Amino acid sequence: MAQNQSAPDTTRRSERSRRAIYDAALALVAEVGYPKTTIEGIASRAGVGKQTIYRWWPSKADVLLEAFLDLADQAARAAGAADRQPYAIPDTGDLAADLKAVLRATVDELRDPGFEAPSRALAAEGLVNEELGRRFVAKLLEPQLQLYVDRLRAAQDTGDIRADVDPRIALELFVSPLAQRWLQHTGPISHDYTDTLVDYALNGLAPR
Amino acid sequence: MAQNQSAPDTTRRSERSRRAIYDAALALVAEVGYPKTTIEGIASRAGVGKQTIYRWWPSKADVLLEAFLDLADQAARAAGAADRQPYAIPDTGDLAADLKAVLRATVDELRDPGFEAPSRALAAEGLVNEELGRRFVAKLLEPQLQLYVDRLRAAQDTGDIRADVDPRIALELFVSPLAQRWLQHTGPISHDYTDTLVDYALNGLAPR
Repeated sequence: MAQNQSAPDTTRRSERSRRAIYDAALALVAEVGYPKTTIEGIASRAGVGKQTIYRWWPSKADVLLEAFLDLADQAARAAGAADRQPYAIPDTGDLAADLKAVLRATVDELRDPGFEAPSRALAAEGLVNEELGRRFVAKLLEPQLQLYVDRLRAAQDTGDIRADVDPRIALELFVSPLAQRWLQHTGPISHDYTDTLVDYALNGLAPR
Repeated sequence: MAQNQSAPDTTRRSERSRRAIYDAALALVAEVGYPKTTIEGIASRAGVGKQTIYRWWPSKADVLLEAFLDLADQAARAAGAADRQPYAIPDTGDLAADLKAVLRATVDELRDPGFEAPSRALAAEGLVNEELGRRFVAKLLEPQLQLYVDRLRAAQDTGDIRADVDPRIALELFVSPLAQRWLQHTGPISHDYTDTLVDYALNGLAPR
């Protein structure tokens, strides 16, 4: 019984510490950039000993990537519907509508100020630090892109996408333009813009 | 006569200094990153006085952007045909072939080691330094993208692209996927890959 009572307390305490560490890591990387963010700085800001951090994560890159995964989950939950299914793109039978809904939620997420600064700082570091970049892609970006692969495969089964199309390349026609506009400030992002990308990608630019 | 003889000498000397400064700036930003690259460091490496640099450029960002424009011109010239027309995408009447040729040359350029390190360093800085990022886009990237706008407009005149398509958005369907794969290491880049992007973008993903 004693164990049954103490376990939830420990879990709650750990959960609070973990969240405090995530918040400190994200705030620091947004303020001073990835290279100047240290485990010591994160621990000090979170009000925990640095051994607490080293017990859970082997490096600052691991802390930041997990903090970022947690932030992305929160942002997606805030932007999505209450009954959002976290690990699938909706399949209402209307492919264009489903893709547009997910991309509109992504636009909202990318415009969230709490998300913007740390994600830019991490993306910038990933450009020049290939090891971090590849972990960022493998742990965070690629699993999200695979949700589009799943939805496009389902659309191939129903005949809404040609059978000879490679879904992993196809998704880039609407995902990458949004990513580049946001990352490199090459143009404004909006729901109209992502709707247009979906229409062009599905129907093509040449006359039908 | 004296002036006629000395003018070319001065021009050649200036051209040599300018190229030495560009080379030094690109090498430094690749080695130590944009934030640690200084006018003093560039001058020292190029073997010129720092006043020489300040006489021609107001800031290190300006030196680097012009160095980069010059590098991009050289890389494009090396990758393209001997009779490359520098400021237009070819118009052979075959839109898909023209776009594929230009994107294949871009793949070769992005894989050029002399181009890769400084362009990553500048792109990374542009992600977090919005002022630099916007100048990078305005001076370097957007003029290149406008060449695609021109070619797509010509294709609208000949009926190869639907009249209701916005060319500035349409070009992103094949340009942005390549940019994201290269920038973020989200996948390999090759001639086959960019050929596929052009085919998907022109014909769409849905059955015809």
